[in-house]
Amino acid sequence: MSLDNFAIIESTLREGEQFANAFFSSDQKVEIAQLLDAFGVEYLELTSPAASPQSRADCERIARLGLRAKILTHTRCHMDDAKLAIDTGVDGIDVLFGTSSFLREFSHGKNIPQIIENAIEVIEFIKSQGLEVRFSSEDSFRSDLVDLLTVYRAVDQIGVNRVGIADTVGVANPRQVYDLVRTLRGVVRCDIEFHGHNDTGCAIANSYCALEAGATHIDTSVLGIGERNGITPLGGFVARMYAFNPELVRQKYNLPMLREVENYVAGLVSVDVPFNNYITGYTAFTHKAGIHAKAILNNPSTYEILDPADFGLSRYLHIAHRLTGWNAIKQRAEQLQLVISDEAIKEATAHIKALADQRPLSLDDVDVLLREYHSKAVDAQEMVHLHGD
Amino acid sequence: MSLDNFAIIESTLREGEQFANAFFSSDQKVEIAQLLDAFGVEYLELTSPAASPQSRADCERIARLGLRAKILTHTRCHMDDAKLAIDTGVDGIDVLFGTSSFLREFSHGKNIPQIIENAIEVIEFIKSQGLEVRFSSEDSFRSDLVDLLTVYRAVDQIGVNRVGIADTVGVANPRQVYDLVRTLRGVVRCDIEFHGHNDTGCAIANSYCALEAGATHIDTSVLGIGERNGITPLGGFVARMYAFNPELVRQKYNLPMLREVENYVAGLVSVDVPFNNYITGYTAFTHKAGIHAKAILNNPSTYEILDPADFGLSRYLHIAHRLTGWNAIKQRAEQLQLVISDEAIKEATAHIKALADQRPLSLDDVDVLLREYHSKAVDAQEMVHLHGD
Repeated sequence: MSLDNFAIIESTLREGEQFANAFFSSDQKVEIAQLLDAFGVEYLELTSPAASPQSRADCERIARLGLRAKILTHTRCHMDDAKLAIDTGVDGIDVLFGTSSFLREFSHGKNIPQIIENAIEVIEFIKSQGLEVRFSSEDSFRSDLVDLLTVYRAVDQIGVNRVGIADTVGVANPRQVYDLVRTLRGVVRCDIEFHGHNDTGCAIANSYCALEAGATHIDTSVLGIGERNGITPLGGFVARMYAFNPELVRQKYNLPMLREVENYVAGLVSVDVPFNNYITGYTAFTHKAGIHAKAILNNPSTYEILDPADFGLSRYLHIAHRLTGWNAIKQRAEQLQLVISDEAIKEATAHIKALADQRPLSLDDVDVLLREYHSKAVDAQEMVHLHGD
Repeated sequence: MSLDNFAIIESTLREGEQFANAFFSSDQKVEIAQLLDAFGVEYLELTSPAASPQSRADCERIARLGLRAKILTHTRCHMDDAKLAIDTGVDGIDVLFGTSSFLREFSHGKNIPQIIENAIEVIEFIKSQGLEVRFSSEDSFRSDLVDLLTVYRAVDQIGVNRVGIADTVGVANPRQVYDLVRTLRGVVRCDIEFHGHNDTGCAIANSYCALEAGATHIDTSVLGIGERNGITPLGGFVARMYAFNPELVRQKYNLPMLREVENYVAGLVSVDVPFNNYITGYTAFTHKAGIHAKAILNNPSTYEILDPADFGLSRYLHIAHRLTGWNAIKQRAEQLQLVISDEAIKEATAHIKALADQRPLSLDDVDVLLREYHSKAVDAQEMVHLHGD
């Protein structure tokens, strides 16, 4: 298993539709699907056709778009749901054993043979129709390990394409995810999918550890929207994988599109892109403290693991504040083509820090001050020339 | 080492001041310090007194407040800075070897004896004045391991209180953090602090793994504000530790204050609390899909790892949409004291789903529909009575 071998199952149109404020029209769903396809995700997961008449019609419509991404829908482990899903023309079905039918009995070791029997019936039917099929439990981290492995081995043996591990409540931590996926990796030959909620801030890290342990597919949604505070966000996951292998991520995905996709979805669900969002948050490439600004001027990789240019973005050095340093101020003077000695730049820097202690400064304030220092220097120079003449 | 033995070093007044939009006045800093102290964090870290005249005055003022939290300031590893810091009256000093003086040479194994000599001079001076002292490198995950351990062992041997591991660029992943901290744990006896940036979404998870490996102190800031997209957020870290040991976290911190602290800081730096913020984001306790709503009605812990009541918050079941389920609709009818048969509730649910396919629905829309079904039921009942009479 290699970390390079991963695929994104983009679930904005399924998990994302479970976000409090998501009410996608059919046309909006198509637009989201096309944007994500153009971005390059490998799979799109859609709400079950059993959810409502429009949900079914939307599955059919998106399956007919001829996108490069494989189209999946997400259904309960029922024959009726599976038949409905197959009829929509999707490429694959993500089958879920929900809490009500699964967890309560499953976690007590009861009815494992019935669960397996039911799963096999549904999986074999889906496979007989030529579709890809995944089988997943809910709340895998609070299930009985032996029961879980027993069921997953059984469905692996009849040729399920993927089994899924889901941290439905966002309780799992990274080493726990690593251990569970690694154990499962030793039991099944099929692909392994990870779905992680972010209630305790570990969704991205857990996804990464799942891949390290041998998982192959990661569920994401745009901005992470989903039940409660959501799941692994597409942008944050991309940032993490970029830190691992920038070249691979640049090849797989159209990175400059990320901001467009996020802005579109944020608009539909009436939220602002968080100020601290991965990659596209407005401060993601802003450097402020003096020593940071100095190092960035010398070599951006000192303080940047992501290259903003890869995402169609640019960095910003923030210099008009009390934490500023003279290297950054000198760089600004050079940008303005002002000639000021290092000694005067240091004096100007102390001046800026003192002003910033009194009130918020703008870049304009800094520029005005630097022009004054420049004029003083020029005047002094002219005085020298005058006297010298 | 136990995960129960951790302390928060709250750095909103140092790392947070490096956030693009942070320009705290002296009074605002005092307010932040008092709120965080009332919340219960164990340490407050302040900007270096060397940064500007006001920064020095603010250290002095906050050190004199008599807060329960220990007051730290953060300085470069220079004797001048250390003297300035001691004179402010703080309880301890977090000494940092910055990139410029440290990383570039350190990572090539050069001048290790000089670095140690310099560190020992500064650390012994600070200790001789009766203050707590921490020594940290920057960018620990891109430093040479042997060099790092050599320096840390040397400062541990002369009695430094803590050494710090810093993921300055947000590049580290959880198992990497675990391995480095565990190795360090075998080399030093002193406490270990972890400071993690969030560029690739692992700050909270990395902090947790650091604690698992034997770290004792975690740096946070309110909403994670700091350089770029920031560091481990206070609220998210608290959520993670709550998932580990709710009772301990309830005892250590005044959890219902979290929202107030976050709102105050968000206002000062002119950002909105992200829609998906840990614990306090407006959707953090909203449940939408039918099977989620049903399970939550039976037992909230099915889908909630955090109890909203502990944070002075409440949960919300969102039922007016196409993913709704009849159990949630039935519960709403009971709230409204409407008498409707299960069969009619299922009919109403299908009706609601179909309406939601057409347009966004409000809870009012659902209530109006339920009242209609109730009236029909009452009418039918009266018809029976009439005919029966």
